Amino acid sequence: MSTAHHPVADARPWLDGIDVIGIDGDDTLWHSERHFSVTEERFADLLAPWCEGDDLGARLLSTERANLAVFGYGVKSFVISMIETAISVSGGEIGVEAIEAIIGWGKELHSHPTEVLTGVVDALDSVRHRRLVLVTKGDLFHQESKVAASGLAERFEAIEIVSEKDPATYADVVARLDIDPSAFCMIGNSVRSDVLPVVEIGGRGVHVPHDITWGHEVTGDEPDDSTWWRVATLGAALG
Amino acid sequence: MSTAHHPVADARPWLDGIDVIGIDGDDTLWHSERHFSVTEERFADLLAPWCEGDDLGARLLSTERANLAVFGYGVKSFVISMIETAISVSGGEIGVEAIEAIIGWGKELHSHPTEVLTGVVDALDSVRHRRLVLVTKGDLFHQESKVAASGLAERFEAIEIVSEKDPATYADVVARLDIDPSAFCMIGNSVRSDVLPVVEIGGRGVHVPHDITWGHEVTGDEPDDSTWWRVATLGAALG
Repeated sequence: MSTAHHPVADARPWLDGIDVIGIDGDDTLWHSERHFSVTEERFADLLAPWCEGDDLGARLLSTERANLAVFGYGVKSFVISMIETAISVSGGEIGVEAIEAIIGWGKELHSHPTEVLTGVVDALDSVRHRRLVLVTKGDLFHQESKVAASGLAERFEAIEIVSEKDPATYADVVARLDIDPSAFCMIGNSVRSDVLPVVEIGGRGVHVPHDITWGHEVTGDEPDDSTWWRVATLGAALG
Repeated sequence: MSTAHHPVADARPWLDGIDVIGIDGDDTLWHSERHFSVTEERFADLLAPWCEGDDLGARLLSTERANLAVFGYGVKSFVISMIETAISVSGGEIGVEAIEAIIGWGKELHSHPTEVLTGVVDALDSVRHRRLVLVTKGDLFHQESKVAASGLAERFEAIEIVSEKDPATYADVVARLDIDPSAFCMIGNSVRSDVLPVVEIGGRGVHVPHDITWGHEVTGDEPDDSTWWRVATLGAALG
């Protein structure tokens, strides 16, 4: 995970000629996926009488993906997907107490303290002569809560909360910044969401991996492209 | 509903000295609440064996209000509130088929065609020499879908999707527009969300009532204030 995707000749070649650095939120600035993982473990325990672990995970992911198109990203969508999967996997035998428990997990997920990742504050404070924007995907209400609770908001010129991280979204972000896409570099933990769509519009991407990645964000073959890099930490990407 | 809140001497005194007009989305530009009302009727039928109409409505509204603080506004939050209320009101007797039905209603609500209210297009097209912004509250994913489906997006300089319509939110909107609050007039169907918080920051508000208003948006005593007005239609407010 700590190897550079490309041999690094310059100190930080990805920042040469860059005016604005975009930084992802969940699992780049603060912990997110580990809270979902804990919930998925509880969900597996709840459904254990009816379904084995791997199969259950696949069925939940399949329901989540179908619901993304209807409900979008976020905890509430995840709660609804868990309830649907629980009813389906149990053949309708799951009780309402279990459904109440799932809703309770969703409330916990929305109420978790926001834990900023180690090294993030120093990494952000090391940036000089470049504009910083936060570009985070998901539920507006929950993302705003996390941005506020992180205490990091004032370090960014703008907070962009978006419903999807695709090329069109990044083109809008870059247009609002009034820069050329080639002057924009996005840093985040998802190759699929933070790197590839930015490269597609002519910007640069830096992948800073996190320990846990949601199945939906896992990419297959990664293109070999001189417009994106992989580095171990946000500090190494910025400082 | 069609009476002016104040005697109207000028043609449209609320627009004197106004540079930017903010317009609400749900039930100002397009239908929303009537879809929720249909769902609430189905919900009442579903719970009829356990609970009478008025009492059920009060219990649902109470659950919705509690969940607003945890989950925010929108259909997904409403779905979760209906499931919780159904389990609670039925003393746990409600079956999983009923819960699946409630989730299905949520999918319908998210997938409804967006129906622009009568007269809206002409009203927007009548505006001259003033900037227009759309300020709509709720779920980011769903609101973006409705804005896109309405076909109205290109008539607005900016689309502001916000998680709450309070004075701080409007102060941010006005700051992004780079104008004084006194040059901003907000038009919408909710006195609570579209009028009073704008007046509080020094702007103006125009209430354009809609047939149906969600219980949470109903205000009690309305302040008598020369900075807001009530007019019958968006066309009368703008044209």
